[in-house]
Amino acid sequence: MNRLTLAADLGGTNLRIAVVDDTGQIICRQRIDTPGDSDLPCFFDKIADLATSCTRDLSAGQLVDGFALAVPAILDIENGKIIEAPNLPFLNGLNITEELRRRTQLTVLLENDATAAAIGENWLGSSRGSASSVCITLGTGVGGGIILNGKPLRGVDGTAGEVGHICVEPDGFECGCGSWGCLEQYASATGLAKVLSQMSHDFPDSSIPENIRVSPKELFEYAKLGDRLALAVFERMGFALGLAIAGLVNVLNPEVVVIGGGLAASWDLFIERLRRTLYERAFRRPAERVKIVRAELGDDAGVIGAASLIFSAEIKAGRATNKDS
Amino acid sequence: MNRLTLAADLGGTNLRIAVVDDTGQIICRQRIDTPGDSDLPCFFDKIADLATSCTRDLSAGQLVDGFALAVPAILDIENGKIIEAPNLPFLNGLNITEELRRRTQLTVLLENDATAAAIGENWLGSSRGSASSVCITLGTGVGGGIILNGKPLRGVDGTAGEVGHICVEPDGFECGCGSWGCLEQYASATGLAKVLSQMSHDFPDSSIPENIRVSPKELFEYAKLGDRLALAVFERMGFALGLAIAGLVNVLNPEVVVIGGGLAASWDLFIERLRRTLYERAFRRPAERVKIVRAELGDDAGVIGAASLIFSAEIKAGRATNKDS
Repeated sequence: MNRLTLAADLGGTNLRIAVVDDTGQIICRQRIDTPGDSDLPCFFDKIADLATSCTRDLSAGQLVDGFALAVPAILDIENGKIIEAPNLPFLNGLNITEELRRRTQLTVLLENDATAAAIGENWLGSSRGSASSVCITLGTGVGGGIILNGKPLRGVDGTAGEVGHICVEPDGFECGCGSWGCLEQYASATGLAKVLSQMSHDFPDSSIPENIRVSPKELFEYAKLGDRLALAVFERMGFALGLAIAGLVNVLNPEVVVIGGGLAASWDLFIERLRRTLYERAFRRPAERVKIVRAELGDDAGVIGAASLIFSAEIKAGRATNKDS
Repeated sequence: MNRLTLAADLGGTNLRIAVVDDTGQIICRQRIDTPGDSDLPCFFDKIADLATSCTRDLSAGQLVDGFALAVPAILDIENGKIIEAPNLPFLNGLNITEELRRRTQLTVLLENDATAAAIGENWLGSSRGSASSVCITLGTGVGGGIILNGKPLRGVDGTAGEVGHICVEPDGFECGCGSWGCLEQYASATGLAKVLSQMSHDFPDSSIPENIRVSPKELFEYAKLGDRLALAVFERMGFALGLAIAGLVNVLNPEVVVIGGGLAASWDLFIERLRRTLYERAFRRPAERVKIVRAELGDDAGVIGAASLIFSAEIKAGRATNKDS
């Protein structure tokens, strides 16, 4: 019988919880809106309830080994604490591990969400088999996780991997992080909207309506119809990604760069410019070596990566029980 | 009695060889011009002769454990081969380890020169005691070495650490690497000359003569006298360094960034702008954490770093003899 674990991906919008086996198969899954901050005990109760309901259908005798949680936060992983969660600020400073351990009687492990996705892709996704990879997630923002020598790079404070905040345009758009011209300003949903607005004057023949918010998906449709403005916005995205990845390739010399997130759907519209920029800008040897690939696990990367932590932690620590330890 | 090793730093201009003990003390040292490429066997003979002459004054019974060589090249460390040495191209493809082992009867180890400097500073210099550091060398070019989790980061092809080729100005000066606006174009001796030439029109009151090559040292003297053009060139250097380091800090979250090389002598002229740019551009937590410090070992960093490889390799492999093994 395969070993099982609970794993969750706590996003700003959705909370996904799944039971995952030690081959990475998702046995069952649940998704709810991320609970609000009005009542903290209730917040943790809801997570624990969803976790419990997720294990309800397991057959008798099937136990989960632990509960791993991917969180969009800077973490003190050793002590199970959230240091800073910009999108869930009411969690700042909390020992979320202890709260959930008490409620579920399970060993609880934390991981940063972008790092969890990188671990997931490295275990079963498009960077599997490689010892070094960078995973870039193109969504509302641009997230990043790094694997070196087969291990996640967390940095001395757990803040490593912020590839979305590599500068690609020193005098570019102001970024939420306080800097200017970060990759995120050219390769995320919020960034594309800014680039679209800035470029629209240069393309008077575009059929994209001005002064109306256009989603990345709509922009994608315009581009497929040949709209030159839409195509130029995705070209700009490819250039920004290529420039940032060239720097990463020169500095880290990784085997694989994985690109995922919702905006990876526009792959065909940016990948050529990305690759051209990478080859023009990075050293030949590491640029020819690195594989630029699409993520394979989609929204499951985080839970699968988190789950793997439970299985690999146990390899070291001896099999945990699902009792309070 | 302390253990001893031979260590060399093979530069494009100078070859330094030293006997180093296991506390990092340099017992004796020699320096010659790097031999030419006219006769390859002769090239290796000269290195071996210098190594032998360096050990001549050791007292009877004092043996060296090995011979470590820092080389400005992409290396196949495991097989002791030079893959690509841009400044010593006649070494491309050679098994330098075997050539020197045959001549000296010593165990020979290779390391990239910038990585060796980072290891040296990490052992006995300004990043000692830290598990993660980036070492940036400001010279004719800009070199870099990275230590993560206490180990040098070499990358899958041995090309990692090229921080001098992080882009800080997408439309900037063309760089020798084939890209544009690399850090090296704003923070190396060759880069400063370009920036000086570009900026001179904006400072008609400068007393720096036009159309005459001004060395970084002369530029430094002008700046100390208050020449506004010279000061602006070093400000530009500080901004470029700050921008590149902000990216490294966001991505790697290291404990220390060490800055060395000849141009680090102008520290007071660029460090304030560097720090301000770093704080403005990087995430607060890793920016406040990272220490930006001057290198302490000067030109010895490479040999000391290389020497440490012999001592730490032996810890694993058992003490080597200075016989052919």
